[in-house]
Amino acid sequence: MDRVPVLSLGDVLLVSIQVDLEDRIAVQLQEDLAERIVATGAHGVLIDITALDIVDSFVGRMLATIASVSRVLDAETVVVGMRPAVAITLVELGLPLRGIRTALNVELGLGLLRAARGVDEVDEAEPEPEPAELS
Amino acid sequence: MDRVPVLSLGDVLLVSIQVDLEDRIAVQLQEDLAERIVATGAHGVLIDITALDIVDSFVGRMLATIASVSRVLDAETVVVGMRPAVAITLVELGLPLRGIRTALNVELGLGLLRAARGVDEVDEAEPEPEPAELS
Repeated sequence: MDRVPVLSLGDVLLVSIQVDLEDRIAVQLQEDLAERIVATGAHGVLIDITALDIVDSFVGRMLATIASVSRVLDAETVVVGMRPAVAITLVELGLPLRGIRTALNVELGLGLLRAARGVDEVDEAEPEPEPAELS
Repeated sequence: MDRVPVLSLGDVLLVSIQVDLEDRIAVQLQEDLAERIVATGAHGVLIDITALDIVDSFVGRMLATIASVSRVLDAETVVVGMRPAVAITLVELGLPLRGIRTALNVELGLGLLRAARGVDEVDEAEPEPEPAELS
């Protein structure tokens, strides 16, 4: 497997991380995501880490970098699907993922992204649909 | 990695296959999907194979089994993200994935699933939203 696929869902990009992120794959993912945000005009990035048993400082830093790059490109990042044990370990390691938004699952993450956009775009002619519709 | 995560998107389950599917993982995925369809009442299953360079007869059979099991549980299966080379190889191998619907990407797959549900549920009190809304 040479790269992590980036899936497009409306104006949100979805990445499900399932493989151990070596340097090369992590860098490739960051580049792919930045390119796809620009190409699709996506306003949100959902990163699913359900499959990860361990989130170490390397992965934490990669998530923070992706969030920062996305923000510069006008896209919010939400990390979803974190396991309870991973959250505990992150805090114990002193890596509380500052600057990264989290949600329990993909649907709640989508809701968070759309709610955030809804606030941003309150002046637009066509209002965003209510977040309640997403459930 | 012990299993392929199953993500929930409204009434659709999304699976992104990124690892080589050994027997154990494939069987686990089939069981997980069947359980999640029953638990969530999902009407559609999207299987993304963007990351797969090779789809051999084992994977083809697994996809067909997932589609059959899902259909029994009242959920349609759509395979998305097949690479051109994979499609060519499948046909050359005489494995044209009969009984499995395909779409180019996740969004088109979602549209296909919702359009199919729209036709099925034409008698319902609340009509399905137009598929055009999904783009």
